[in-house]
Amino acid sequence: MTEPQRKLHLNAFLMSTGHHEASWRLPESDPLSSTKVEHYQHLARTAERGKLDSIFFADSPVLFGEVGRRPAGKLEPTVLLTAIAAVTQRIGLIATASTTYNDPFNLARRFASVDWVSGGRAGWNVVTTAGPDAARNFGVDDQPAHAVRYERAAEFIEVAQKLWDSWEDDAVLADKAEGVWGDDSKIRAIEHEGKHFRVRGPLNVPRSPQGHPLIVQAGSSEDGKKLAAQYAEAVFTAHQTLADAQAFYSDLKARTAAVGRDPEGIKILPGIVPVIGSTEAEALKLERELDELIKPEYAREQLAKTLRLAPEDLPLDRQLPADLPSEDDIEGAKSRYTLIVELARREQLTVRQLIGRLGGGRGHRTFSGTPEQIADAIQDWFFAGAADGFNIMPPVLPSGLDVFVDQVVPILQQRGLFRTEYTESTLRGHYGLARPENRFAGSEGKQLTSIGSAF
Amino acid sequence: MTEPQRKLHLNAFLMSTGHHEASWRLPESDPLSSTKVEHYQHLARTAERGKLDSIFFADSPVLFGEVGRRPAGKLEPTVLLTAIAAVTQRIGLIATASTTYNDPFNLARRFASVDWVSGGRAGWNVVTTAGPDAARNFGVDDQPAHAVRYERAAEFIEVAQKLWDSWEDDAVLADKAEGVWGDDSKIRAIEHEGKHFRVRGPLNVPRSPQGHPLIVQAGSSEDGKKLAAQYAEAVFTAHQTLADAQAFYSDLKARTAAVGRDPEGIKILPGIVPVIGSTEAEALKLERELDELIKPEYAREQLAKTLRLAPEDLPLDRQLPADLPSEDDIEGAKSRYTLIVELARREQLTVRQLIGRLGGGRGHRTFSGTPEQIADAIQDWFFAGAADGFNIMPPVLPSGLDVFVDQVVPILQQRGLFRTEYTESTLRGHYGLARPENRFAGSEGKQLTSIGSAF
Ligand SMILES: Cc1cc2nc3c(=O)[nH]c(=O)nc-3n(C[C@H](O)[C@H](O)[C@H](O)COP(=O)(O)O)c2cc1C
Ligand SMILES: Cc1cc2nc3c(=O)[nH]c(=O)nc-3n(C[C@H](O)[C@H](O)[C@H](O)COP(=O)(O)O)c2cc1C
Repeated sequence: MTEPQRKLHLNAFLMSTGHHEASWRLPESDPLSSTKVEHYQHLARTAERGKLDSIFFADSPVLFGEVGRRPAGKLEPTVLLTAIAAVTQRIGLIATASTTYNDPFNLARRFASVDWVSGGRAGWNVVTTAGPDAARNFGVDDQPAHAVRYERAAEFIEVAQKLWDSWEDDAVLADKAEGVWGDDSKIRAIEHEGKHFRVRGPLNVPRSPQGHPLIVQAGSSEDGKKLAAQYAEAVFTAHQTLADAQAFYSDLKARTAAVGRDPEGIKILPGIVPVIGSTEAEALKLERELDELIKPEYAREQLAKTLRLAPEDLPLDRQLPADLPSEDDIEGAKSRYTLIVELARREQLTVRQLIGRLGGGRGHRTFSGTPEQIADAIQDWFFAGAADGFNIMPPVLPSGLDVFVDQVVPILQQRGLFRTEYTESTLRGHYGLARPENRFAGSEGKQLTSIGSAF
Repeated sequence: MTEPQRKLHLNAFLMSTGHHEASWRLPESDPLSSTKVEHYQHLARTAERGKLDSIFFADSPVLFGEVGRRPAGKLEPTVLLTAIAAVTQRIGLIATASTTYNDPFNLARRFASVDWVSGGRAGWNVVTTAGPDAARNFGVDDQPAHAVRYERAAEFIEVAQKLWDSWEDDAVLADKAEGVWGDDSKIRAIEHEGKHFRVRGPLNVPRSPQGHPLIVQAGSSEDGKKLAAQYAEAVFTAHQTLADAQAFYSDLKARTAAVGRDPEGIKILPGIVPVIGSTEAEALKLERELDELIKPEYAREQLAKTLRLAPEDLPLDRQLPADLPSEDDIEGAKSRYTLIVELARREQLTVRQLIGRLGGGRGHRTFSGTPEQIADAIQDWFFAGAADGFNIMPPVLPSGLDVFVDQVVPILQQRGLFRTEYTESTLRGHYGLARPENRFAGSEGKQLTSIGSAF
């Protein structure tokens, strides 16, 4: 049954030479692309040519990944997106930032600034940042507990949203004749006093084009889903099977309704790694070529760390040990842990096979086939109540994005599943989400002013 | 005596509609320009047309200035500079950021990213941020003491520089055949443990084009000068008289030499607000027109706050009260306080007159005249051992920058005082400063790696 009126949302998740960990070794790849702004500007323009809703950068404030293994180190995503904003017109721009290792004032301000610079195209993927290594870059020996990180994240978003509302949309009078620039009854101190933060405000940026930059969320643990239901407007998630994706989808929509929000106001986007060939055989050949370039020692070390084992406990040609910690014992990234363990068990994969599967998409669903088959895979999940759209994770960049845009998108457009032109100019517009009301409009002003600045 | 080989350095200090507090009220001004990226991109291109060394944005993480009085609220400067980087090729890009209200890891990373995006044009104006109002946006009731802020600033710069050196320039091997991307003996944890910070590192950005973004400093108190002598490569400062500027210049050069640095390695740039007319009378008329648009009540309130008095203690047509606090008692911006008090005393200004003088340049030297006279004023201080160049603060923007670039710069060029073409492509290059060595090169690696990342 087709539903011609309902449209897919497509986000391109961009990462140096691509999502496959060995992609940098292909002859076509530029292994220094992570620090080249032109590389990303080119990718963004390709995505915009394909009329995608948005592009996205993951992030963690730590040098992640073994530098021997694949490109590590990269540009800070709000900086990168700003450089991209300057050379694009329509595409939405989503950057990850951690609520555990930032201050709400600084971060709310930065996203409001990106929203201004891009004309209303900024989105913030709110993450809590797993792992002790990031903590050690901020004077802390270990990550705060998972529950504490999520509690702080919720309060962080509250503070950011209050700050974004600290200026009313019509606070600027700009009355030259009278010499009155702003109306200080429409710019308010927020006087936030909570468990994790005390922030006076107001923000030092006027309310931005979108009112609030889009809130995106990407953790799928129990706490992660609670946070998403409360605040998220788009959700990235990883599923290996249709059943898992459907369960997640209906669970999160129901949770969103349960807190009094419109479930249409949260767009759920599972990841897909499309390995595309002009024939199925060609696609499988590319997948195999890539997998053969993986160096298993590195990958085994990472897997061992995720599973809290020593690499020696994971002989390459055996299945995972029977006795593994439960998700409850994991203080890092809970949902990805569970996904990996379930994948290995369900498909009875050896460590070597599991490494191959994870090397392609780190737990996201890899799908190899022709453009037509990829479009079918997308359509199937979309119609089966598993997704409002997809997080497209090309295994190789830029070629994997080019072929998606040039060969898969037209099929989706022909089927009436995807826009043929942008009709909106903001990120919220693309996702069909309203501009939020200002929570303080009409309320009494709290005395604000900071007189002075003698630069 | 001309010194044809020694060249001036010129920085454009950009601020919404200009440095004169009433500039926004002129018919030509766009009072909404503070949030318009195009406004700043246009200004930057003008400065680049004039071959200026750099542009600069001031900053404080608080809504400063009374919103009734003049444009308040603006874009975060690293975001703004990044958007400008995308549409310029050569001009240096200096952003202010506070060491009191940031984390070194996040900030070092952001500047390294801007340095990459701009091809080596990033500079950081290191400030300690005066005032309790900023503190209250970060969960603190009052600013840390002046001395503590400067102590933290010094350690903050140390940490940032270590992080910028945590990757050697040749750490990336990109050996596709062997499948080895980075050389992990050339990427080091910094393991910084100090009084204010504990930061493990390494940075998650490879060493940037300039090695270290340029360090700029702008506080002129005793502690400020100590910090500058130790770390600064360019210094912004405000002086009303040649004698004060000369004293500051020779003092800071001597302090720089005393800590073992080359005094040529620190460029001292006093501010000048050039009010330019095709005749002297026209310039003075523009100055008067602007001053008449100032609303004295607002300005008096700000002055009272700076002097720690009530507005009623400052009758408009009287001189300042005899009994004012000494600089030692000021925990905010010490040097600007002293400058204002000395200016009023020396010239026996009434409060109204003082407000007029501060409204034009907040304590910076305002100079009204023809392009020739402005060029003379610049040349005089330059030859008199008061400056290595100037911080140009147009009273009205964009027109005041246009006229400076089109009419003053050519005179300086004809006199052999200023470049006629860029010869370098980095900010360090423009200022004649070397790319710093990597302090860790050749030393033993400290074990670094953060395995994993499961996005
Ligand atoms: C597509 C996608 C992108 C993600 N990007 C990030 C990221 O950039 N940074 C991060 O810390 N976590 C990111 N995550 C979340 C982690 O994978 C992990 O789920 C999270 O850190 C912990 O959440 P959980 O414990 O709720 O599962 C992403 C997840 C998905 C599905
Ligand atoms: C041209 C110029 C620009 C400045 N910009 C800033 C700024 O953006 N933010 C800031 O907090 N201080 C800035 N300052 C420094 C303040 O004016 C003040 O001197 C400083 O906050 C405190 O330093 P002090 O106590 O050492 O004088 C600037 C100074 C000058 C001369």
